[in-house]
Amino acid sequence: MMEERLKEIIAEISPLDTTPMQEIQAHLDNLTKPKGSLGRLEELAMKMALIQGQRRPEHPKKVFFVFAGDHGITEEGVSAFPKEVTYQMVLNFLRGGAGINVLARHAGADVRVVDIGVDHPLDEAQGLIRRKVAPGTRNMAQGPAMEREEALQGIMVGIELAQEAIAQGYGLLGTGEMGIGNTTPASALTAVITGRPVKEVTGRGTGIAVEALERKVTLIQQAIDLNRPDPADPIDVLAKVGGLEIAGICGLVLGAAAAGVGVVVDGFISTAGALVAHALAPSVTDYIFAAHQSQEQGHRVQMAHMGLRPLLDLDLRLGEGTGAALAMTLIDAGIKICNEMATFEDAAVAEGNEAF
Amino acid sequence: MMEERLKEIIAEISPLDTTPMQEIQAHLDNLTKPKGSLGRLEELAMKMALIQGQRRPEHPKKVFFVFAGDHGITEEGVSAFPKEVTYQMVLNFLRGGAGINVLARHAGADVRVVDIGVDHPLDEAQGLIRRKVAPGTRNMAQGPAMEREEALQGIMVGIELAQEAIAQGYGLLGTGEMGIGNTTPASALTAVITGRPVKEVTGRGTGIAVEALERKVTLIQQAIDLNRPDPADPIDVLAKVGGLEIAGICGLVLGAAAAGVGVVVDGFISTAGALVAHALAPSVTDYIFAAHQSQEQGHRVQMAHMGLRPLLDLDLRLGEGTGAALAMTLIDAGIKICNEMATFEDAAVAEGNEAF
Repeated sequence: MMEERLKEIIAEISPLDTTPMQEIQAHLDNLTKPKGSLGRLEELAMKMALIQGQRRPEHPKKVFFVFAGDHGITEEGVSAFPKEVTYQMVLNFLRGGAGINVLARHAGADVRVVDIGVDHPLDEAQGLIRRKVAPGTRNMAQGPAMEREEALQGIMVGIELAQEAIAQGYGLLGTGEMGIGNTTPASALTAVITGRPVKEVTGRGTGIAVEALERKVTLIQQAIDLNRPDPADPIDVLAKVGGLEIAGICGLVLGAAAAGVGVVVDGFISTAGALVAHALAPSVTDYIFAAHQSQEQGHRVQMAHMGLRPLLDLDLRLGEGTGAALAMTLIDAGIKICNEMATFEDAAVAEGNEAF
Repeated sequence: MMEERLKEIIAEISPLDTTPMQEIQAHLDNLTKPKGSLGRLEELAMKMALIQGQRRPEHPKKVFFVFAGDHGITEEGVSAFPKEVTYQMVLNFLRGGAGINVLARHAGADVRVVDIGVDHPLDEAQGLIRRKVAPGTRNMAQGPAMEREEALQGIMVGIELAQEAIAQGYGLLGTGEMGIGNTTPASALTAVITGRPVKEVTGRGTGIAVEALERKVTLIQQAIDLNRPDPADPIDVLAKVGGLEIAGICGLVLGAAAAGVGVVVDGFISTAGALVAHALAPSVTDYIFAAHQSQEQGHRVQMAHMGLRPLLDLDLRLGEGTGAALAMTLIDAGIKICNEMATFEDAAVAEGNEAF
């Protein structure tokens, strides 16, 4: 039944209507600057206008969803941080002290924190969105990380949160996550979906040493060999070698695209979620803003697979949505360019000679 | 005498005192994130703190100086836009309708427009800073663009404006410019100072065609061969193949560095000014934030020559200071990270195992 609901959502996702493109381009070209000289800011203005189905983009109300989940694979020792850090950081998010809180405030975006799979009751946590599917995944090196139903449930959480936020008037969603060990499932999932070797898409996460990286690659290969995820069935891949926060992000992307709303996708973990969404509905990329080039090496493979080009490259590798928050400030800048600059006519400035 | 005053200013420029570096780094490493995971935002926070000579960086008051000047070389037909656009854009800046106005507002920075060499009286222009050294440079394909005294005067304008702004409480300056044809002197100057071939540092400016580009390269080579600027004498280079807005930017950079204040340097033209400042006082790079990778091909050569790495790469090629305005928002983000994030202790989050 959940699979049916998911199919309905996917059916609602359609490519952007590019009819207004020419008119928007004519306006951008008529602003007092050489054609195209504001580069990607113009691209952002165009994309927002097309997503909003308007001749001029409007400043959207913005919100981040930070999905938190734990990972059974951490018992194999794949992270430099202990698993407890997941719930401790959830409390830090709720108190406003984490990187994403600071940068979301900087970008004028709200932050919502979702327990989708933390291995801690978090009873005392105030303001937490409680949508726990399971207290973490199981150790994928020993068997599937999740049941298929759990993966589907995780996706539905993301879809429902997107729908609720959009109903509340949010016009731009941001993806964020927290989950100690989660570069490991993100790499596994990226390898299976893109067909690239595990080694090529596996990096040092929060900062593990070279020997630990070798062990991580071996464990991921073991998990893939053992569970045999079907690359043609994205839900199967997500269930067997993914994670609950990744499922939530996949759902958020699908929910945004189905409602015709933009979503700013953060770094490596978030893009793993987007990769599953893209495998289910390739048109989601029309609604995705790729925020930044993560330091995690598999991220380039993810971007190339979906034909996306990140906006920023600031050596970030924190996750949480931090890169996406910075990207939102660029989207706002693009919207302002489109709406606030004078035209050649308004300003009585002579136009250039295109044929020159 | 002007040369003496310049020497005094240069003597005031000293490398940053890095004594507080360890203490600042310890604080950044104690924030609730893996060490170094906020990449260049941490670098920006560190640089601002060192420039300010404080343990924690403070948000500076920000101002742009947009220097406008004309170029005699335009009579050879090196630009896709007519020369009149320089003064027309000055009026646009003063009315707030140009790209830099929109993006400076976005960044919370003020904009000051300086006539340092526009070939138009601009009598009607309200709010203009009138520091015209000459009504444009002369055609450098026929003789030197400026007298040495004019170049020095242009630099002094920039130094004085920096000093005035700093006295008024501004703590971060931004460079901007407008001058139809000014990629031509910027390329000439870059070739002479870096010793690279003209062809390698000359691009399409506001968008000239391939044949026009070939003619531009030939003209620049002709100007260099005719005027024989001395690469060991930066003022000579600036005078013979530079421009007045480039001189003003050079002065702004020197004035900021001499006063121990940061300066955000925009794209190709601005960096040509910074290149002259760097040739006069190599320590200026300690105070420079390189805003963005310009689309103009010579910009990479300029960056490599000074050992700078741009923050953004958004396919911008407008100038005016637009890239620098976007970079200012990243500097503010870095400052916020340093001051607003919780520490591991505050947030009761377990630290990672570095040796892992």
